[in-house]
Amino acid sequence: MRILFVGDVMGNVGQTAITTYLPKLKRRYKPQVTIVNGENATRGRGINEAVYKDILTAGADVITMGNHTWDNNEIFDFINGAKKLVRPLNFPPATTPGVGYTIVKVNAVKLAVINLQGNVFMGQNLADPFTTVQPLVAKLREETPNIFVDFHAETTSEKEAMAWYLDGQVSAVVGTHTHVQTSDERVLPNGTAFLSDVGFTGPYNGILGMTRENVIQRFLEQMPTRFNVQEDSPAVLSGCVIDLDGQSGRAKKIARILINPDHPYFDD
Amino acid sequence: MRILFVGDVMGNVGQTAITTYLPKLKRRYKPQVTIVNGENATRGRGINEAVYKDILTAGADVITMGNHTWDNNEIFDFINGAKKLVRPLNFPPATTPGVGYTIVKVNAVKLAVINLQGNVFMGQNLADPFTTVQPLVAKLREETPNIFVDFHAETTSEKEAMAWYLDGQVSAVVGTHTHVQTSDERVLPNGTAFLSDVGFTGPYNGILGMTRENVIQRFLEQMPTRFNVQEDSPAVLSGCVIDLDGQSGRAKKIARILINPDHPYFDD
Amino acid sequence: MRILFVGDVMGNVGQTAITTYLPKLKRRYKPQVTIVNGENATRGRGINEAVYKDILTAGADVITMGNHTWDNNEIFDFINGAKKLVRPLNFPPATTPGVGYTIVKVNAVKLAVINLQGNVFMGQNLADPFTTVQPLVAKLREETPNIFVDFHAETTSEKEAMAWYLDGQVSAVVGTHTHVQTSDERVLPNGTAFLSDVGFTGPYNGILGMTRENVIQRFLEQMPTRFNVQEDSPAVLSGCVIDLDGQSGRAKKIARILINPDHPYFDD
Amino acid sequence: MRILFVGDVMGNVGQTAITTYLPKLKRRYKPQVTIVNGENATRGRGINEAVYKDILTAGADVITMGNHTWDNNEIFDFINGAKKLVRPLNFPPATTPGVGYTIVKVNAVKLAVINLQGNVFMGQNLADPFTTVQPLVAKLREETPNIFVDFHAETTSEKEAMAWYLDGQVSAVVGTHTHVQTSDERVLPNGTAFLSDVGFTGPYNGILGMTRENVIQRFLEQMPTRFNVQEDSPAVLSGCVIDLDGQSGRAKKIARILINPDHPYFDD
Ligand SMILES: [Fe+2]
Ligand SMILES: [Fe+2]
Ligand SMILES: [Fe+2]
Ligand SMILES: [Fe+2]
Ligand SMILES: [Fe+2]
Ligand SMILES: [Fe+2]
Ligand SMILES: [Fe+2]
Ligand SMILES: [Fe+2]
Repeated sequence: MRILFVGDVMGNVGQTAITTYLPKLKRRYKPQVTIVNGENATRGRGINEAVYKDILTAGADVITMGNHTWDNNEIFDFINGAKKLVRPLNFPPATTPGVGYTIVKVNAVKLAVINLQGNVFMGQNLADPFTTVQPLVAKLREETPNIFVDFHAETTSEKEAMAWYLDGQVSAVVGTHTHVQTSDERVLPNGTAFLSDVGFTGPYNGILGMTRENVIQRFLEQMPTRFNVQEDSPAVLSGCVIDLDGQSGRAKKIARILINPDHPYFDD
Repeated sequence: MRILFVGDVMGNVGQTAITTYLPKLKRRYKPQVTIVNGENATRGRGINEAVYKDILTAGADVITMGNHTWDNNEIFDFINGAKKLVRPLNFPPATTPGVGYTIVKVNAVKLAVINLQGNVFMGQNLADPFTTVQPLVAKLREETPNIFVDFHAETTSEKEAMAWYLDGQVSAVVGTHTHVQTSDERVLPNGTAFLSDVGFTGPYNGILGMTRENVIQRFLEQMPTRFNVQEDSPAVLSGCVIDLDGQSGRAKKIARILINPDHPYFDD
Repeated sequence: MRILFVGDVMGNVGQTAITTYLPKLKRRYKPQVTIVNGENATRGRGINEAVYKDILTAGADVITMGNHTWDNNEIFDFINGAKKLVRPLNFPPATTPGVGYTIVKVNAVKLAVINLQGNVFMGQNLADPFTTVQPLVAKLREETPNIFVDFHAETTSEKEAMAWYLDGQVSAVVGTHTHVQTSDERVLPNGTAFLSDVGFTGPYNGILGMTRENVIQRFLEQMPTRFNVQEDSPAVLSGCVIDLDGQSGRAKKIARILINPDHPYFDD
Repeated sequence: MRILFVGDVMGNVGQTAITTYLPKLKRRYKPQVTIVNGENATRGRGINEAVYKDILTAGADVITMGNHTWDNNEIFDFINGAKKLVRPLNFPPATTPGVGYTIVKVNAVKLAVINLQGNVFMGQNLADPFTTVQPLVAKLREETPNIFVDFHAETTSEKEAMAWYLDGQVSAVVGTHTHVQTSDERVLPNGTAFLSDVGFTGPYNGILGMTRENVIQRFLEQMPTRFNVQEDSPAVLSGCVIDLDGQSGRAKKIARILINPDHPYFDD
């Protein structure tokens, strides 16, 4: 089984990158399952139903989220019916709409997709991601050994700890949230593919995709500033491809994808 | 002018990686200046004089530091005489020993090396790195346009902001501290080479180089734990090579170096 | 029912204050239950068995703790047999020794004492204190309506939120951790007594009880510093007295106690 | 010289408390200088010109601010002409409008009023308050020994450290920001009056003055919530009175003022 995962789609620039490149990437890599993180899809903050549908139309099978899940109020209008949207598992169970994982069926094979959020420097105090994900993984493994975790977290420490903690229990732990792709992709000794952060999909010339002048101004002035998505910019698309053994769930390979003006996409 | 930069050397595993690979890398890439971040060199916390000298002997011209500069008390015994050691510029000027930058002369060309620390999520409240580095850069440019900044910071946001802020004023902004190499190397429009984080040099099978079981235990138990460097591990070495135009100071190219068991080093 | 609560006992100065004043305060106020926070009792960091017993001997019925519970390793030697010691409820249940609440019997009346820790700015990511304490309170109320909560937290926001959240369900929410007594004692509309922070018991001329020169030095130099308890100092003792209706559990009154050189203790 | 200081006025409830009680307090205590913190005066976030003038009309001589200074954009319309408004001194000097201190003349005697912000857990990285305020204090002392510092900070540690650091150099260090009054008022050995936090002036039945249900909801749900000032509530007014020796600048006495439904105001 092959999984294609694309990181945080951001605003119009990110959406255009998805409609442009996702079909090409799917033709080239022929993934059985395509997952896209959409926490910044609608103007940088959350996602609304129109954009959710557009990303599915462009080829995503599952859309994962993160700390920005609730930033666009329209989420509450459609999340409960959105079967392909997964928000972080460890938000409070009593009050949080939506689901923290889903299972995708590809012919006879199933892939569970979990969205999980870190607790360090995230500004939200959620249930401990380690002890929250562990019993879910155990339960899911009764159904399928193929489990993909989008771990939305800030620090490399929490991300590496999660990957080693789950090594051998899930097929992949791939980080999101920092919007910068790391180059540490590897398969851990017990078969879990890991990449600290897959990076984001949006404006190449913003700061994490936001308007440069506003972010720099905030650092210089320390006053409240409104950030917007940097619109006048070429795009970056960040992703990775993971090959699993569908019988054992073990990852065989993980490779990064990075498309930007310095690394343009070439059709074969 | 070519610069070789190697990220946070960590403990014995990192030191051995330096003595093993730094001479090879220098033979291959023939840098005029070699810079090594040494904030974790002595048992993961700070650096003492013996290790400082060992890294110089292995081929470093300058050793940069970070938030862990003061963790090993032996630093106070030799920092004031250590002409090739640079600690973060923006520690309090009245009380901090050592220097925040140095100038290396290579024949007729000079390279200024600045060590700078971010303020977001770093646990130390230092002078604003933006307004602190700006006047120094202006002053240094009267002497040389070739300026390298090791920006030791946690968040991708602060790192990208610094790089765009200094674009055209310095030759390179390369991040350290997260211990994970990013894949976003690029030359910004006005000639500044940028890489969010160069990564670290130490145990490949630790968590940021520290003992896995202890770091995971801390996340699970939330109790005080003593971390040590993971000693029984193969090594990773993380670095980058930057080519500058020595007349203008503009970067021409930046390339990452990553050596680990999954990406072994081959002599040409 | 009358409760006497005394805040964070710190080091030798704090222990001496307890042995000196706790008997006097008990003679004057005649509380049915005396509770003392002991998270800083042994040299400022945690508590060992000898000091635990000394505080009980001085008159405490229950000793509550906080984020410093585990700082002194000797805690692990005796916590499981320490029937009168309560550590924060919301530490991870699978790995944490000790208990998060206890029930004290006074003739026919029972008082449950809960120790709970906040999550904001506490440096430990514990289970959400709100949703963790709520089902325990519901369960305890089947046994007794008299419930005292030592809420060990940093921010006034989290403390006030907890008090209003539990108003009418517990008899008292009294904060600890900041080491400074607040003057906002009140009985909330549905009968819960509240005080944001009861303050600490230890050196009056330290900074939160720690050596002034070291704490100021840390702020000035931003380097690692070892803090110790300020020993050459007169003492402060901080506490409060709460009167409950033992039938309904409703608080009738809460009054602060503050003894220090500026507010000396006078026997009647 | 007598100073009356009143803490963070919040929204309509706070403004009404000021117009109701400030004239009464001035008649009773006859302060030479009245200082009011106004960072939350206009709907809880910042201050606009109309409210600024109202508070002056009600009897304030100086209005101090804090981290919320810039939350209401109208501040930029009038701050540069607002001779009686002082914002935190340690915002970036190059970009911040307004002033960080002012000098009030009372007959032949002068009082300098400084507004200063802490760095710990404040969400803004400002210049170190210790080394920023120190040279200003030295300069001001050439003009007057009477110096009042409103230290707007979160932690008791930073507040106590500042007070001991400035002991003997300023007349008073009084904290604001937590919105809860502390009971630790004292005159330090070298003559500086100190109170960790003077408390706030606004709705008695909010959480830090904000709507209870929204603040509790944020803790329970961990989703973005809009807080508003709790309007349907009686008021609390928090303040203190400080007596100085106008010749030496030494404080002679500091006393707290707290008016709320549990501690109603009685005219003599
Ligand atoms: Fe994102
Ligand atoms: Fe995010
Ligand atoms: Fe490091
Ligand atoms: Fe570091
Ligand atoms: Fe304490
Ligand atoms: Fe504490
Ligand atoms: Fe305020
Ligand atoms: Fe504030």
